[in-house]
Amino acid sequence: MSWCSILPTYGQDMNNTSVPELVTPLYRREIKVPPVPGYLTLKCDFHTHTVFSDGVILPASRVHEAWLNGLDVIAITDHIRSDPEKQTVPGDNNRSYQLALTRAQELGMVLIRAGEISRRMPPGHFNALFLSDVEVLNQTNFMAALEGAAKQGAFIQWNHPGWKSQQPEVTKWWPEHQEIYEKGWMHGIEVFNHSEWYPVALDWCLSNNLAVMSDTDMHSATSLEYDLHKWPRPMTLVLSKDRSEAAIKEALFARRTVAWFGSHLAGRTEHLEALLKSSIRIEPAHYTDAKGNRIHYLVNASDLPWRIKEESGVFAGEVWLASAGSATIKVASEVKSLRLVMSNAHTSGQQVLRVDWRL
Amino acid sequence: MSWCSILPTYGQDMNNTSVPELVTPLYRREIKVPPVPGYLTLKCDFHTHTVFSDGVILPASRVHEAWLNGLDVIAITDHIRSDPEKQTVPGDNNRSYQLALTRAQELGMVLIRAGEISRRMPPGHFNALFLSDVEVLNQTNFMAALEGAAKQGAFIQWNHPGWKSQQPEVTKWWPEHQEIYEKGWMHGIEVFNHSEWYPVALDWCLSNNLAVMSDTDMHSATSLEYDLHKWPRPMTLVLSKDRSEAAIKEALFARRTVAWFGSHLAGRTEHLEALLKSSIRIEPAHYTDAKGNRIHYLVNASDLPWRIKEESGVFAGEVWLASAGSATIKVASEVKSLRLVMSNAHTSGQQVLRVDWRL
Amino acid sequence: MSWCSILPTYGQDMNNTSVPELVTPLYRREIKVPPVPGYLTLKCDFHTHTVFSDGVILPASRVHEAWLNGLDVIAITDHIRSDPEKQTVPGDNNRSYQLALTRAQELGMVLIRAGEISRRMPPGHFNALFLSDVEVLNQTNFMAALEGAAKQGAFIQWNHPGWKSQQPEVTKWWPEHQEIYEKGWMHGIEVFNHSEWYPVALDWCLSNNLAVMSDTDMHSATSLEYDLHKWPRPMTLVLSKDRSEAAIKEALFARRTVAWFGSHLAGRTEHLEALLKSSIRIEPAHYTDAKGNRIHYLVNASDLPWRIKEESGVFAGEVWLASAGSATIKVASEVKSLRLVMSNAHTSGQQVLRVDWRL
Amino acid sequence: MSWCSILPTYGQDMNNTSVPELVTPLYRREIKVPPVPGYLTLKCDFHTHTVFSDGVILPASRVHEAWLNGLDVIAITDHIRSDPEKQTVPGDNNRSYQLALTRAQELGMVLIRAGEISRRMPPGHFNALFLSDVEVLNQTNFMAALEGAAKQGAFIQWNHPGWKSQQPEVTKWWPEHQEIYEKGWMHGIEVFNHSEWYPVALDWCLSNNLAVMSDTDMHSATSLEYDLHKWPRPMTLVLSKDRSEAAIKEALFARRTVAWFGSHLAGRTEHLEALLKSSIRIEPAHYTDAKGNRIHYLVNASDLPWRIKEESGVFAGEVWLASAGSATIKVASEVKSLRLVMSNAHTSGQQVLRVDWRL
Repeated sequence: MSWCSILPTYGQDMNNTSVPELVTPLYRREIKVPPVPGYLTLKCDFHTHTVFSDGVILPASRVHEAWLNGLDVIAITDHIRSDPEKQTVPGDNNRSYQLALTRAQELGMVLIRAGEISRRMPPGHFNALFLSDVEVLNQTNFMAALEGAAKQGAFIQWNHPGWKSQQPEVTKWWPEHQEIYEKGWMHGIEVFNHSEWYPVALDWCLSNNLAVMSDTDMHSATSLEYDLHKWPRPMTLVLSKDRSEAAIKEALFARRTVAWFGSHLAGRTEHLEALLKSSIRIEPAHYTDAKGNRIHYLVNASDLPWRIKEESGVFAGEVWLASAGSATIKVASEVKSLRLVMSNAHTSGQQVLRVDWRL
Repeated sequence: MSWCSILPTYGQDMNNTSVPELVTPLYRREIKVPPVPGYLTLKCDFHTHTVFSDGVILPASRVHEAWLNGLDVIAITDHIRSDPEKQTVPGDNNRSYQLALTRAQELGMVLIRAGEISRRMPPGHFNALFLSDVEVLNQTNFMAALEGAAKQGAFIQWNHPGWKSQQPEVTKWWPEHQEIYEKGWMHGIEVFNHSEWYPVALDWCLSNNLAVMSDTDMHSATSLEYDLHKWPRPMTLVLSKDRSEAAIKEALFARRTVAWFGSHLAGRTEHLEALLKSSIRIEPAHYTDAKGNRIHYLVNASDLPWRIKEESGVFAGEVWLASAGSATIKVASEVKSLRLVMSNAHTSGQQVLRVDWRL
Repeated sequence: MSWCSILPTYGQDMNNTSVPELVTPLYRREIKVPPVPGYLTLKCDFHTHTVFSDGVILPASRVHEAWLNGLDVIAITDHIRSDPEKQTVPGDNNRSYQLALTRAQELGMVLIRAGEISRRMPPGHFNALFLSDVEVLNQTNFMAALEGAAKQGAFIQWNHPGWKSQQPEVTKWWPEHQEIYEKGWMHGIEVFNHSEWYPVALDWCLSNNLAVMSDTDMHSATSLEYDLHKWPRPMTLVLSKDRSEAAIKEALFARRTVAWFGSHLAGRTEHLEALLKSSIRIEPAHYTDAKGNRIHYLVNASDLPWRIKEESGVFAGEVWLASAGSATIKVASEVKSLRLVMSNAHTSGQQVLRVDWRL
Repeated sequence: MSWCSILPTYGQDMNNTSVPELVTPLYRREIKVPPVPGYLTLKCDFHTHTVFSDGVILPASRVHEAWLNGLDVIAITDHIRSDPEKQTVPGDNNRSYQLALTRAQELGMVLIRAGEISRRMPPGHFNALFLSDVEVLNQTNFMAALEGAAKQGAFIQWNHPGWKSQQPEVTKWWPEHQEIYEKGWMHGIEVFNHSEWYPVALDWCLSNNLAVMSDTDMHSATSLEYDLHKWPRPMTLVLSKDRSEAAIKEALFARRTVAWFGSHLAGRTEHLEALLKSSIRIEPAHYTDAKGNRIHYLVNASDLPWRIKEESGVFAGEVWLASAGSATIKVASEVKSLRLVMSNAHTSGQQVLRVDWRL
C-alpha cells in the first residue's frame, strides 16, 4: 500500500494531486423552467456591460458567464462611447457585440446587439435592443438617439427607474417619460435591476401595456456579486415561439415576459398562471388517514420558486417550493378544490397570484 | 399598517425594495493568519492574468478581487506579448501593472510588477517578480529572458511543474531546470497551482533551497472558479518583516514562505511549526471528571486549517480545526504532554508536521 | 507511483479513502463578538426544545449543537408535561436539564434550568429561566405557575408575541399582559423568535423597561432549519460581568441584552453603541490622492453585521461589514468627523443607531 | 409611503417581519435520478440510528429528514438493546420502527424494519433488513442472530468493513466473513459508509456476487454532518421494478444496486452504464466552424455526477457534469464515435467505466 497510507487525509499522487474541495466545476447549470402552452420559456438577461464601457470583463466572457449560469439569451448593452479610440480598450459601439458573437454561436446562445443611452433623471437610462448598428445611439440629443433606435426597429426599455442615485425618495414617472411613451419609444421597463425591485414600475407596465423586464446590469463578474449557490441570477423569462432572435423580439413586443429575481416572480396574471400550471402538479392522494383525510404530494417540477398558501382553510401555513421541491398537503375528505395564493408571484405592485385548483 | 401587511413575505417599499437573499455584499473578507515571532504573515498571490494576456478581466479588477478575497499582495503576471499594438487590448508588457497601480494604492495592497515567460516543457513557464521593466522578458531566447530578469534582481519561480498539459505522466526535473537552477535563476517553485498540488515539488524546494509557492494562476473571475464559501483562495503566506515591497522581496529570497491551499498547508517544518504555535493554544482544563480526566479547550485563533491527531494514545480520532474553530480534548490525569500530528501540514512530499506539546 | 496514478480523480487508498467534499467537520465555530467596557458579551439562546416536549432531539444533543454553533449559554425550555410517565420519553419536567448537564459542563457551556408555560393568546407562551425546580410550572392555573416561578427568582419572558398562529393580524398587548407586567412577572420579551422579528415588541421593551430577547425556539435540528453557512443562528447577546450563571442572571435582570438575528441587531442605544465601538475602528489614512482626499480603512473586528451609511454627504452608498470584513472610505481633506447611520441596528421599532465619529 | 421608507434595508411590518436570509425552507428536495430500462431507480439509505440506540433524534424525525433529503426508502437500524426498559428511551427493538411507520406512510416513503448487530472485528457490524421481528437479533451468539435473521428472509449486509476503529491498517476479509458468506448470511457490503469509501470492498462484492451498498450510518442530524448545499447525502441507488417493499427486497437480492457518494459512483459495469445512458445525451451539432469542426451539447439530464474524459484524443480535458449540467464538446468533422471514460464511476477498486459512444 506504500506511502499512500502514511497520510491520514487521503492518498496523494506525488506528481499531481487534485484538491477537489477548492473549486467550482465550470459546467453550465441548466435551469429548469417549463414551456407553457404555445411557447418556450427562454431565460434572458437584457442588460450587461463589458470592458467596452464601465464593465470589467471581456464581451466573450460575459457571454460565457451567462451560459454557465444557464441563460439562453443575453444582450451586451455597453454605455455609448463617443471617443472610442481614446479608450483603454478601443473600438466603436458595435465592437463588444462583434467580439462576443462567435463565442455565443459556439455555446448555442442568442446574443442581442444593443446599447445603453445614459442621462441624468429625467429621463435616466434606456436600453435599445435588436439594433442593426449601435452607433445610432451615439448622439448628443437623447430623443434623437431614441428615434434612431426606433427606426432600426429596436425594443426600447427604461432601466432601473427606482435607482436611488437618480430617484432617491420616490420612483417617479416624469413628463419626459410620458413623452417618450407617447412617441412609442418605450416598450418595457425594468421592474427589477441587479438587486432592487420597483413594485410601482410593475403597475406602470400594466397600465401602459409595457413589457416587464428583470436584468442584472452586470458590470463585474456575476459570480462575485450574486450568491449563485442560493438562487439563479435574476432574469427575464420570455415566452417565445422558438429560440430565434426574431421570435424573442416578437415576444418582447407582444409583452410576453415575466421577471424572476430570487424568491420572487412578477408579471401579468395570465403569464404567471401559465407558468404555475406548467410547474406545479398535485398528485392523487397516496395516503388516507383514519379520519378520511387524504394526503397529496404537491410537486414543483421546475426550478421556479412558489410560496403557496391556501385561503379557504384547507391547510394552514405556507408551502414553499423552490427548485424541484415537493411537499405534502393534508386535505379533508370532502374537499374538492383549493384556493391557492402564491405570495411571491406579484401580479401588480400590491397584488399576488390567486388560483382556484380542482383536486 | 397599510399595504405592508397584505404581502406575507415581507413588507415592500413600492419605490424600491431590496432583495437581500440574492447578493453577496462586496466588502473585504479579512483572513486571520497570525504573525509569527519576528514576522508578519502576509497573504499573497504571485500568479494572475488580465486582459493584457489571456485573462478576461481588467488589471484594476484583478487587484480589487484580490482585496475582496483578503489578500495583502498580488502580482499580475501576464504572458509576454510581442506585438502589443495588434492586440484587442493594446499596450506593452508594463501596461497592466500601470493600469492597476492606483487601485492597489487606494486599497492599501502591494502590487508587484511581474511577467510570465511561457515555453513548452522543458522548461515550461516561469514568473519573474519585482521587475523594473517587464519588457526585458520579451525575448525569443528563453535563457536570455531569465538572465535579463535576474539582472533586474527579479525573484524567479517555476510555475505549475506538474501541469498535465506539459507533464502528463510524471512531474520531472529536466536538465534544463538543472541548468537554470545552477545559474541561480530559479528561486522558487509552485508546489500548488490553481487546484493541483505537486508533492514532489515540495521535496525539490527542500533539497535545493527554493521558496515554496502557491498561486491561483487566475485567468477568469476568482469567484467563478473557487468555492469561496468554503475556503479562501489558495495563497502563498510570506513571513515578512513589514508590509513593504522590499520586505516581501527579502522574505521570498530568504525562503520564508508557506503554501496554503484549501485544507492543506505545505512548507518548511520551522515555518509550519511557527504558524501552528501562533494559531493554536490549549487552555487550562475547565472540567475534571470523576475519574480525574481533565477536559481542555484546543483553540484555533486563526483561519488556518489544522487537522490534529495524537500519536501516543492520549486521545483518539482527529481534531479538525478550520477557520476560528475550537474543540475539547479529554486527557487522563497523569498526562503531561501530547505528541501532535498535523496531517494536513506537509513538511515534505511524504511527511507531515509533528510537534510535542507540553500541557 | 503504483496504483495511485491510474485513477484520474485523486489517489485512493484501497482500504479506506475519505471523501472530503461531503462532510462538514464537527468543530465549534467560534463567533467573534467583542467585550464592551465592563462586560463580556455572551452568546445565548434562551428558548429550545428536546424530546422531553415536542422537540426531536435529545437534551445533550441540544447542548452539543449549541456548542458547535458557537454559543456560550443555552436554556432548554421544554413545554410542561403533566403526565410524564405516559410519554414516549418518560421523565418529569426537570429531566431534560438533568440529562444535559454533564455534557454542558464537559463542553464548558452554561446550561440554564428552565421551562415553557404554553397557553392560548392571551397571554400566549412564557419562559421561566433560572428555576430551581421546573415542576413549579406544572399547574393548571397560568398565573399560579408564573407566581411560583417568580418565587424561585426566575427571569420570565414573553415568547414570540407576534406569532401568527396566535396573533395573525396585529401584535397586541392584552390586558392579561398588563396584569402580568404589573405583578412584576414579566422581565423580557422576544423581539425575535426563530425567523420572525416583531418591531413593536422592541418598543414595548423600551417603554416598560424589559429585556430584549432573541431566541431560536428550536424543535428540530438547528442545522436543518437555519442556513448556517450564511449567518450564525439567532441569539441574545448578554453583557455579563463574567461567565457564571449568577452573572448572566444579573445581566438579564439589568436588561443588558441585544438581539442578533441574521443581518439585524436590536436593542437599547447604549448597548448597540458600545458594541459598535468595540467592533469597528477607522484606521489612519493609508493613501491621499492628488486632490487631498484621504482613504481610510473601516474595519469590523467582530463577526457582528454593520450596515453603515454617512448622513452628512462625506461618502455615498452603504458600507456593509459582516463577519470580520473591512472596507475603504474616501474622505475630503477638510472632513473631521462622520455622521454614521447603522441601518441594521434597530434602537426602536422605527429607528436605527446613529453615531457621530471623530476621525 | 409611511414608515416603510425610513428603513434603508427593507420595509418591515411592525407586527411581524420575516428575515428570509436566515432560514432554509423545509420542503423536500427532489433528486433527479432517471429510471433505466425495466427499473425505477430508488434512492435509499439502509443504515441509520435513532434515540432507540445511540442516535440523537426520534425515529419519525429520521424519516422526515430522509424525506426532506429526497430519499424514497429508509431503514432504521438501531443497535440491539438487551435491557430496553432500563433505557432513557424505553421500548423493545421493534419500537423505533413502530414509532416511525405512520410518518413514513404520510410522507409516501418506504420504511424497512431492520436492526444492527454490533461486535468487535471480526466480524464487526452487520445490518439485517426486512425483518418481521427485530427481537430475533437480540442474542448473545452472533451467528445465532444472523441465522435468525436469515430465517426471517432478511437481507444481511456487512457494514463499514474498513472502519478504522476496527480495521486501522488493512481492510481485511477474515475467516469469520468467509464462514458467514458460505452459510449464505451475507448478501451485501457497504463499499461506502458515512464519509469513507472502501475500494477493496467493491472488489469483494464483484468476486462474491454481493450487493454494493452505500449508507450514511447517521447518528446525529444529517444536516449537521453533511454539507448538503454541495452534494445529496450518500445513498444506495436500487434498480427496482416498482416502489413496493417487496420489489426493493427483490432488487437487493438480485444485486441491482449502485453506490452514490458525493462526486463518486460505484457498482457493476452494467448498472453504471445503464445509469450513464439514461442520464447523458449528446445533441446534434448546433454549430460548425470554418474548419468543419462540429460543436455538440453534452447534457446531463440527471443529478448524478459524471466526470468524462475522451481517450482517443477527440477532445482534451475533463467534462464535469454534476446536477443537471451541460457542456459543449468540439469534434472534428470526420469523428464518428467517442471513447468515453467516466473517472468517477468505479466499476472495481481500480477501474472506472469506459463506454464507446456513437455520435
